[in-house]
Amino acid sequence: MTAEEATAKRAELVQLAMKMIEQRGSAITRGDLAAESRTSRARVEAIFAEESDLFEAIVEQWFSYDIEVMEEVVAADLPIQRKFYEFFARRYVRERKRFEDDPALFALYCELGTQHFEEVRGFIDLADHYLTELIAQAQAEGFFEGFEIDRALSLINQMLIAYTSPQVLMMISHRLEESKLAAIIDTMFAGLSSQNNHSSGVSALRAVD
Amino acid sequence: MTAEEATAKRAELVQLAMKMIEQRGSAITRGDLAAESRTSRARVEAIFAEESDLFEAIVEQWFSYDIEVMEEVVAADLPIQRKFYEFFARRYVRERKRFEDDPALFALYCELGTQHFEEVRGFIDLADHYLTELIAQAQAEGFFEGFEIDRALSLINQMLIAYTSPQVLMMISHRLEESKLAAIIDTMFAGLSSQNNHSSGVSALRAVD
Repeated sequence: MTAEEATAKRAELVQLAMKMIEQRGSAITRGDLAAESRTSRARVEAIFAEESDLFEAIVEQWFSYDIEVMEEVVAADLPIQRKFYEFFARRYVRERKRFEDDPALFALYCELGTQHFEEVRGFIDLADHYLTELIAQAQAEGFFEGFEIDRALSLINQMLIAYTSPQVLMMISHRLEESKLAAIIDTMFAGLSSQNNHSSGVSALRAVD
Repeated sequence: MTAEEATAKRAELVQLAMKMIEQRGSAITRGDLAAESRTSRARVEAIFAEESDLFEAIVEQWFSYDIEVMEEVVAADLPIQRKFYEFFARRYVRERKRFEDDPALFALYCELGTQHFEEVRGFIDLADHYLTELIAQAQAEGFFEGFEIDRALSLINQMLIAYTSPQVLMMISHRLEESKLAAIIDTMFAGLSSQNNHSSGVSALRAVD
């Protein structure tokens, strides 16, 4: 098998695995995949050395659009606020469509993702990496003043979790809208600065009287 | 049975029911509660006419601290930013403690809450009601300018969902901190205004080029 053939076979098996997950409504193993694809078990195992390698390949496929979007937006020549908007909105819109097209399958992938968090973590780290780049660009223009990048990253991730977390999407999809996402991003750009600390002046909780 | 006796018996049964849920790690019925409390089934049913009434009483107990906090904060004489902080932080701190004390029990209550969403919805509506009061107070001082109250409510709920949703708490508890909550509230007060709309100038997604 040439390297090209191996790559093509791998892509074909990942597509088939995702189709099987959709049809069965459950996770599948390399054994299931070998049977369904009429490929020898040995050949499937040559491509996916461990069960986790199969799952990792599925995760990679699941997130491939998101990675493309993030790369494109980080490199794009747009006003920084607009870059933030595109960064989150495009992925949210696509994720919402996937959820609406098949809520049960979407829930199954979320569950699989939770069970195999090790394989998903790499993707989350990558999203953080790209967002860090955008934050650096924004800070170079004077936004998010006075925050360490990691701090700004954490705050922005928390403020926008409704538009990035599939679990939250499943809970409140009917309340999410692009125009609200835009308003939250505008709020961040106008207000996220270490100069603003009216509520946090007192660090410990104290009695209201 | 006098009205006082009935109220006391009801409270006693709710406490026992919650203890049983904790011990068994699962939901319980009025029948289980009658057996465990050595109370006649008829008497339990006189107090909880339907199974959902028992669950509703448990939900009420689960949220009683939150309701007390919200009432107190709305009525308190504090700077408005601080009121927002107390409104969210006190409930978050208590919830985090409940989660840390017994993650499995916390997860069970979340699951029960999802299954019995009708009974939980009343509490969510009540929290929205109190937050609406706080938003009106803030708008009277010139904050959150140009937003309908319901719009501001939705945006604020979304920006702070990490600090109010038990599901999100379970996912990212290690990333949540009072100081971050304070920074998000400060960001809202400084930046949430319909004057700020740099990212939302274009309403539809467009190609990045």
